[in-house]
Amino acid sequence: MEVKKFQLSESEMPQQWYNVLADMPTPMEPPLHPGTGQPVGPEDLAPIFPMPLIEQEVSSQQMIDIPEAVLEKYLIWRPTPLVRARGLEKFLETPARIYFKNEGVSPAGSHKPNTAMAQAYYNKISGTKRITTETGAGQWGSALSFSCAMFGLECRVFMVKVSYQQKPYRRIMMETWGGSCVASPSTETQAGRKILEQNPDSPGSLGIAISEAVEAAVMDDDTKYSLGSVLNHVLLHQTVIGLEAQKQMEMAGEYPDVIIGCAGGGSNFAGLSLPFVRDKINGKDIDIIAVEPASCPTMTKGPFAYDFGDTVQMTPLLPMHTLGHSYVPAPIHAGGLRYHGMAPIISQLVLDRLVRPEALPQLETFQAGITFARTEGFISAPETDHAVAAVIQEALKAKEEGKEKVILFNWSGHGLVDMAAYEAYLSGKLSNIALADEEIQRALNDIAPLPKPKQYTGSH
Amino acid sequence: MEVKKFQLSESEMPQQWYNVLADMPTPMEPPLHPGTGQPVGPEDLAPIFPMPLIEQEVSSQQMIDIPEAVLEKYLIWRPTPLVRARGLEKFLETPARIYFKNEGVSPAGSHKPNTAMAQAYYNKISGTKRITTETGAGQWGSALSFSCAMFGLECRVFMVKVSYQQKPYRRIMMETWGGSCVASPSTETQAGRKILEQNPDSPGSLGIAISEAVEAAVMDDDTKYSLGSVLNHVLLHQTVIGLEAQKQMEMAGEYPDVIIGCAGGGSNFAGLSLPFVRDKINGKDIDIIAVEPASCPTMTKGPFAYDFGDTVQMTPLLPMHTLGHSYVPAPIHAGGLRYHGMAPIISQLVLDRLVRPEALPQLETFQAGITFARTEGFISAPETDHAVAAVIQEALKAKEEGKEKVILFNWSGHGLVDMAAYEAYLSGKLSNIALADEEIQRALNDIAPLPKPKQYTGSH
Repeated sequence: MEVKKFQLSESEMPQQWYNVLADMPTPMEPPLHPGTGQPVGPEDLAPIFPMPLIEQEVSSQQMIDIPEAVLEKYLIWRPTPLVRARGLEKFLETPARIYFKNEGVSPAGSHKPNTAMAQAYYNKISGTKRITTETGAGQWGSALSFSCAMFGLECRVFMVKVSYQQKPYRRIMMETWGGSCVASPSTETQAGRKILEQNPDSPGSLGIAISEAVEAAVMDDDTKYSLGSVLNHVLLHQTVIGLEAQKQMEMAGEYPDVIIGCAGGGSNFAGLSLPFVRDKINGKDIDIIAVEPASCPTMTKGPFAYDFGDTVQMTPLLPMHTLGHSYVPAPIHAGGLRYHGMAPIISQLVLDRLVRPEALPQLETFQAGITFARTEGFISAPETDHAVAAVIQEALKAKEEGKEKVILFNWSGHGLVDMAAYEAYLSGKLSNIALADEEIQRALNDIAPLPKPKQYTGSH
Repeated sequence: MEVKKFQLSESEMPQQWYNVLADMPTPMEPPLHPGTGQPVGPEDLAPIFPMPLIEQEVSSQQMIDIPEAVLEKYLIWRPTPLVRARGLEKFLETPARIYFKNEGVSPAGSHKPNTAMAQAYYNKISGTKRITTETGAGQWGSALSFSCAMFGLECRVFMVKVSYQQKPYRRIMMETWGGSCVASPSTETQAGRKILEQNPDSPGSLGIAISEAVEAAVMDDDTKYSLGSVLNHVLLHQTVIGLEAQKQMEMAGEYPDVIIGCAGGGSNFAGLSLPFVRDKINGKDIDIIAVEPASCPTMTKGPFAYDFGDTVQMTPLLPMHTLGHSYVPAPIHAGGLRYHGMAPIISQLVLDRLVRPEALPQLETFQAGITFARTEGFISAPETDHAVAAVIQEALKAKEEGKEKVILFNWSGHGLVDMAAYEAYLSGKLSNIALADEEIQRALNDIAPLPKPKQYTGSH
């Protein structure tokens, strides 16, 4: 019988993360302090992050050891399987060979614990007692809560109120792992109280939740803040995905022609693709595609500029593709992809033509998810469906061209806690939310009027 | 680093199922026709099951080949990992070594597809176009819907109305896989219409849903019916769990002293334990524990008798431990364990002292689930929490006794679609439902007054 899954033994699990900063052709621009316009230093970040993570954020070391204690926790679900999607191939009648990395096998159901576990560990050894964070749909909050449980840390999650009310399952997951979850805006922080005074019925937003989580961390010496995407150290921790995949593709006797991941803040996409980006820098011919929603087209329609990471303008300014920090994406079901910006590393790689962005409309992604479920069995998260849809496009293109392409993608998480989204799709209640170009234009005009970061001007 | 997971390669996956009927010390009593009181023959079952499954139901062949096409589908999620629960061991400070078989990695999230896939296959090759079934909480209906998608069969699920309304996620999973799901009682069958005439607001019951599913199968030549537990062929298909576990325990250099599984109809318990029951018959000293809920104490309080499998008295009479077919278990959250009877095979093994039943109260099982989630990461299904609770008891007993016991249990499924149950527990809304002994007595008096099956009278 033909092999379906390529599985590493635990001893073959990567012992180091890969840091693409060491190899990027264009050096990264530094984050800037919003007050001074000067590059932020470690002392600016010390109140919110533990020092080992601040050091990783700026490290230029190519390979960084994964601590033994983190490796031990990774074993709960890693190494994850690399799967040949034979059922999907057969259905599409494509000559392409399709492989996916199944990151949905973690207890939280997605790739998020890869960094949550590392962040919990570094906080633990730095003396942190409590970690705060924000969460939208809840994937990140639950991954962090799980990871804090593994290292005996308290976890306090500020969850956007409308999600808190509509998506109780993720909140209960957090509580099952011992974390606590509060609807944001809350009365626990000045930021929250201020919003509630103005509007007691505020549904909340990711921006407000970030403000609350950061404030709660800054106000208490034993408390630090944690972010689930965008930052360099977060992407670093996720590279364990791609490093495993490289070994597994070798087991399969293959090398990918096309690599695909969905991208919201950029972390799961980076996790799979960065080790292959290194190969591409070294001359390999790979098409590396980052898929975003058409309703939040950060990379395909947003300029590369310095902008705030949050809507309330508290974070440092990051050099990134952005739709403007005041852009409010349409309420699509892939909540993890509704972010106005993109990880600076991915943004730079897009500029350098090492990563090719693509935007897909919501209906096509759910259709792809249904096809995947009925051919490969697993029900994908709505975010992951964006990757699946792009894979189907590429596989059909290979069929048209009669080419035996090898496609590798990141199946970043399952959708079992997102079934309401599938119900909306199956009952015909979803649409391809039309792009409000004026809204994008308005938000773009709102981008901080600061020195533009250097842009790539060469040609490939 | 110490090994956490023992993983078989795909080529090491068992190629045959184990049929305990070949080795049981006491021969099984046959099912009886409810009208004639005579043993049912293949012709009685032909309108509802395809012939290969009827043959397996009565086969005495010890090993039965798993068809190539079923093996191929098993590869979607099998072989499943055997995991050393080091986090739980450490937390309990027990000298016991605890292993669990993770059956939650299937697309449907439990062990159920092991038989659903086989049943879909045998129906497919027998010319069946459509399979009907009933489902309570939805685990079985979703597993069958997934499996029908893999073999291009229609799937029609009659879901108990109160669950249909309260647990939409399982229904949407079925629909995502292309199955259709209707609230039972429905207007599609005579049985359903009759109930609705008497009580338009009927919340439904598993018994009613079985009647509807069987009627829908009998009325149409292209349609067959499928059952997710209790019957011999269902237990047979599940033995792939225990056969894998035997190889994996060998990899770990261990042999279990204690084997634990939760038991509702008996299928996941049987799946792990039957291959070890063979060893026990051949002289191995193993304590094999089937855990049931204290509120539905089939094995610990029900006699071994001929009784109907359903409440409306349509099925053949099965020789089994039963609380009486009219027993209505308290509405505990482990819906999969709320069944008045027990698989005849397991019932006979209990009689023969090869399996030891134990009943646990609801609160203890959820507390165990919380402990498991915070030490091993994974959130268990409420059914599975019954096994976890018994494991914790045994591990603490080993600690008291200072014994290095090896405990193996079946982690039969995850609880991500059951978070409402955890919410009820965490918010203090659950209780240990007191046993209404009079209710049991009343139902017991209702057991069909038919010749009692032969009982084991020897002593061990």
